[in-house]
This record gives sequence, C-alpha cells and structure tokens, in this order.
Amino acid sequence: MPARLRVLIVDSPGKHPLYRITREQWRAACARHPAPARRVAARIVRDGPALAPALARAEAVIGVPARRDELCAGAPRLRWLHHTSAGVDGLVPLDWLPRGVAFTNNSGAHGAKAEEYLRMAYTMLNCRMPRIIADQHARRWRQVFSPGLAGQSALIVGLGDLGKAAARAARELGMTVTGVNRSGRRVPEADAVHPVARLDALLPRADYVVLATPLTAATRRIIDRRRLAHMKRGACLINIARAGVLDAAALSAALARGRLGGAMLDVVEPEPLPRSSPLWRTPNLVITPHVSCDDSERYSDITLDLWFANLERFLADRALKHRVDPRKGY
Amino acid sequence: MPARLRVLIVDSPGKHPLYRITREQWRAACARHPAPARRVAARIVRDGPALAPALARAEAVIGVPARRDELCAGAPRLRWLHHTSAGVDGLVPLDWLPRGVAFTNNSGAHGAKAEEYLRMAYTMLNCRMPRIIADQHARRWRQVFSPGLAGQSALIVGLGDLGKAAARAARELGMTVTGVNRSGRRVPEADAVHPVARLDALLPRADYVVLATPLTAATRRIIDRRRLAHMKRGACLINIARAGVLDAAALSAALARGRLGGAMLDVVEPEPLPRSSPLWRTPNLVITPHVSCDDSERYSDITLDLWFANLERFLADRALKHRVDPRKGY
Repeated sequence: MPARLRVLIVDSPGKHPLYRITREQWRAACARHPAPARRVAARIVRDGPALAPALARAEAVIGVPARRDELCAGAPRLRWLHHTSAGVDGLVPLDWLPRGVAFTNNSGAHGAKAEEYLRMAYTMLNCRMPRIIADQHARRWRQVFSPGLAGQSALIVGLGDLGKAAARAARELGMTVTGVNRSGRRVPEADAVHPVARLDALLPRADYVVLATPLTAATRRIIDRRRLAHMKRGACLINIARAGVLDAAALSAALARGRLGGAMLDVVEPEPLPRSSPLWRTPNLVITPHVSCDDSERYSDITLDLWFANLERFLADRALKHRVDPRKGY
Repeated sequence: MPARLRVLIVDSPGKHPLYRITREQWRAACARHPAPARRVAARIVRDGPALAPALARAEAVIGVPARRDELCAGAPRLRWLHHTSAGVDGLVPLDWLPRGVAFTNNSGAHGAKAEEYLRMAYTMLNCRMPRIIADQHARRWRQVFSPGLAGQSALIVGLGDLGKAAARAARELGMTVTGVNRSGRRVPEADAVHPVARLDALLPRADYVVLATPLTAATRRIIDRRRLAHMKRGACLINIARAGVLDAAALSAALARGRLGGAMLDVVEPEPLPRSSPLWRTPNLVITPHVSCDDSERYSDITLDLWFANLERFLADRALKHRVDPRKGY
C-alpha cells in the first residue's frame, strides 16, 4: 500500500466561520468519499507561525496561506494547492505559485446558492421592488404593477459556475438566455452564446444583464459608461462577479437619471462599503453584502465534495478540474 | 343559426387600467377563440347611467357593476355574471345576485404571476433581505449569510389558484410542500394535504407559512395571535390572500420580538395603508402594495381566455368552472 497523501487544511481565523473547515466536516466528507479518503492523512492547522512545520511536509494544501510568498521555500513537497474561493483575483499575479504545483479554485461551490440569488434578483427587479422598498420606507402605499418575466431576455456575461446558475434561473422563469464568453463556445444552459467581441451588439436587446465573469485584465470595467449607454432603456443590471468588472459610478448615474430600470449589486468597492458611499442611496439600486453565492450551512461540505472529486483524479494521475490558468488569470 | 349571445362588458373607469378590457383586447381574444366568438355579440359600456339600457338586454355580463343591487330588476335576461377578480369577499352577502344567474369568479387569472411573486418572497425571506434592506438604508455593510431553500418546508393555507402557485414555487426551490384546505383533498402540487382542522399541529413544522385562502367567515383571522405563537421560532409568513385572514398587529409584535424571522404582506387593512400605520416600520416585514398576482400586461388577456373557455361550456349547456358558491362564500 502506498504512503498516504499528506493533506494540510489551512484554517484562517480571520475568515467568516462558514468558510472554515472543521474536523467534523472533514470526517463527514471522508465518510461520503471512503475510497479516496483512505489514501490521505489530513491535518487542520491554524494559519500563522504554527503552519511552517506542517507546510514543510504537506503534499496537498486546502486554503491559500496568508504568507503565500513563503510557499516556494517552505513547501518543498507541495504538488496541489486548492483555493477555497472561486475568484483568484485577490491572489494575482501568481508569481508566488511554486513551479509544478497544480493550483485549483473552488468553481462549482457557488452555483446552487447563486441560482437562488438570481431568481430573487430577476423577480425583485421585474416586480420593481427597489421602488416598492423606497415607498415602504416613505410609508407610501402606491400600486406598482409589473408584467411576468416569461419572454423577457437575459444576457449573461461569463458562463462559468455563476453564469450557468444565472442562465438556469432565467430559464426557469421563462426568459430567453443569451450568453457571452471568451470563445463563444455553447453551453446547454443558454439559448445562444456569443464571443465577448459581440457584447456591444447584444446589450441593446437584453432586459437583464448579469455580470458573472472572473475579474481579469480582460474583464476589468467590461461594463463601463459607454456600454451602460448601450443597454435598453429601463433594462436592469445584476453584478454577482467582482466590483471591478463594472463602473459603479456610471451605473449610479444611469439609475439616477432613470435611464436604467434597476440594479442589484452583490459586490462593491471597497468591501465593507463605507457609510459615505453615494451607492447606498442610489435610486432603484439594491446592495447585498457579498452573500449571493455562499451557502451558510453547506459551503464547506460542498467545497470538500468538489475537492474529493478532484482527489480521485489526482490519485489516478488524471488532469485536475478547475485548475487556474495563470495566463488567463482564472 | 341561433341568435348571438348578448354580452355586456362593464367598464369601470375607477379601476386601474390593467383591469379594464379594451376593444382591442376583446377583438384579440375573439381571434384566439374564433368558434365561440362567432356566437356572441359584445359591447363595452362604461359603468354609470349609460349602463341601464345595455343591462336590460344583456344575457352575459363581464364585470360586476357598482350598482349591483339593481341587477335583479334591471337585468331580466341575465344568465351569467363574471367577476374579473378572484375574491368575492367585497361583494358579500350575495343577496343582490339574481336567482338563477350563474356567478363565476376570475380564479386562474393570477397563478402565473403569483408563482413569480412567491419565488421572490421565499428567496427574499430566506436570504434575509428585510435585514439587508434595513442595513442599506442605514448605510451599513454587514454580511448576513443564509442557507439554501432546498429541504426547507412550506405550509400553504388554501389550495386554489394562488395556493397551487405558492406550492409550485416552493417545489421549484426544492422545498417540501404541505397544504391545508377544507376537505384535506390532495392536489398534485403538494406533497401532502390536510384538512384545516390540523392547522395547529402543522404550524410548528413549517419554515414558511403562506396564506392563500379566500376570505370567508371561516377563514377570517385564521392566523391569529395564538396560531402565530404555534409557528416555529424564526419561521416566515407570507400573505397574498386578504388582510382579514391574518391578525397583522399580532404578526407585527412577533416580528418586533424576533420570534418570527420575517414576513411579506401583499395585502393590508386598509388599502391604501395610511402613513400612520405601525406596519410600515415593523422590523423584518416587507409590504408590497397588492400587486402580487396581477400581470400588468396580460391580466385582461388571461381573463378573457378564462371567460372564453367557460363560454364554450355555457354554450354547450355544461357546468361552468369557477362558479361562486354563495354558501361557501367563494
């Protein structure tokens, strides 16, 4: 029998508890995946000074340590590093990543919860909830009727885990779904997919535009003032990606002018958003505090299920899924 | 060829335009239902003094006139009266209804829109949007995470058009669905149905309680202070029925104490709700202005499609659907 793979789970005390992996969650995941679990020996170690000896022996690490610049020298046996978030934009440039180490992200951990958030976002914006909320605050009972969502159109920018969830939610509501990605390669969740170069031509046709793309050099401010002006009058925008993909000040101006019908932002810059930000009071804008995609009860379980599925590939010397491509930046 | 059935469409200028049937909508409905349409001759007449001569000749009437007490004397040929709302609680007692006249309501016109509203309500309450909305108003960025809805439980009180819509929306979100109606007779939209006598035993098990019952003597305040106290700690309540089925003051107190997690009311008493009502500022309560179930673009089209389907039954001397039973009060 070969030696067990030494796995280190980095516990970051600063993170919200939902992102931390407990011993009980690890054991439960091993019980769900008994065959690969027999081939690993895992430890959970708090990030900080105690991490160094564990890192020195680790072959696989779950969670990027705060001092990631020390991985090259301090983790000589490391072959696989898993990031427990989907976005790696906070870790670029990836020059700290030791050569030859497979780096995977947590794509797939957010789809189910994101799908629920998107159902909420489409229905709230269609129902003109931002205005109804403002009326409630002003203690003003004023009927605002709305059509059904069936037959309306959603344009999804980015078709990864989140974008597919946004497409599924739109389909369930009877909307037509157009997607945009780098290549234009089709996905079953969308009625049509176009390469990102076609974005300008697609924006005027969409009732809902959803931003679900990783933040990279290519997507920074992909929706800027010019492209907001391409959107259909009264259309709505939803951002569940990263704040950097959108010019939020230009969005705010378009909402204040009534040019757009409404927007929902789960990501803002900076987070926490300071009290002084004018975004808080932008009309027809709903801000949620970066909670759209993370299941408060199941996040770590889902993360470990994804990791174990990849572990089977790792142990069989097959290519890992959700490997980050340093050139693409996601 | 028999004489055409004389149909009178009562146009009530005081109503919101979405409820009024235009000549164009009537013509379009006739085009969708050409066979029965050939057998009727319809007029649209404004409610008021001009109505009397039209009523005197009408055999079928769409829309209850304001002076419904004059129907007995003034509409001697009337055989079928159709109400363009689902609820007849505003028209009881039905002693004004001429003997022998079939009285139908608009059940079926609200399901599709209600289903969207319920998807919004479940996801908003689960996502703790009332708290997030309050935080936004206070310009406070504070993360509030939430679990998925899958596996949570919905209890639907009333299983007509609205209740079935509430059940479908819950199912689509992966929830388990228990229904309550008078008889306990099963409907395919719910996993289980119980007679209303079992309500006390069912309330403690539900994460979401949805009120979707007609307002009758039997359902007035069906959810009162005592039954609110039976609900699970942290559970949520949604009312899309009529304000009278709920003790809103007791709900408000339960929300203020944190005993319940949240609520969404589309119906309040009175409507419009006055500025002085304490409901406006009840924590974790969202008030929508009686807009949950009426499609702003298709309401009259749906109404006419339902009416034409019943017209085929009427012309064939078959029993009409959605006939109001004066004894039940709906």
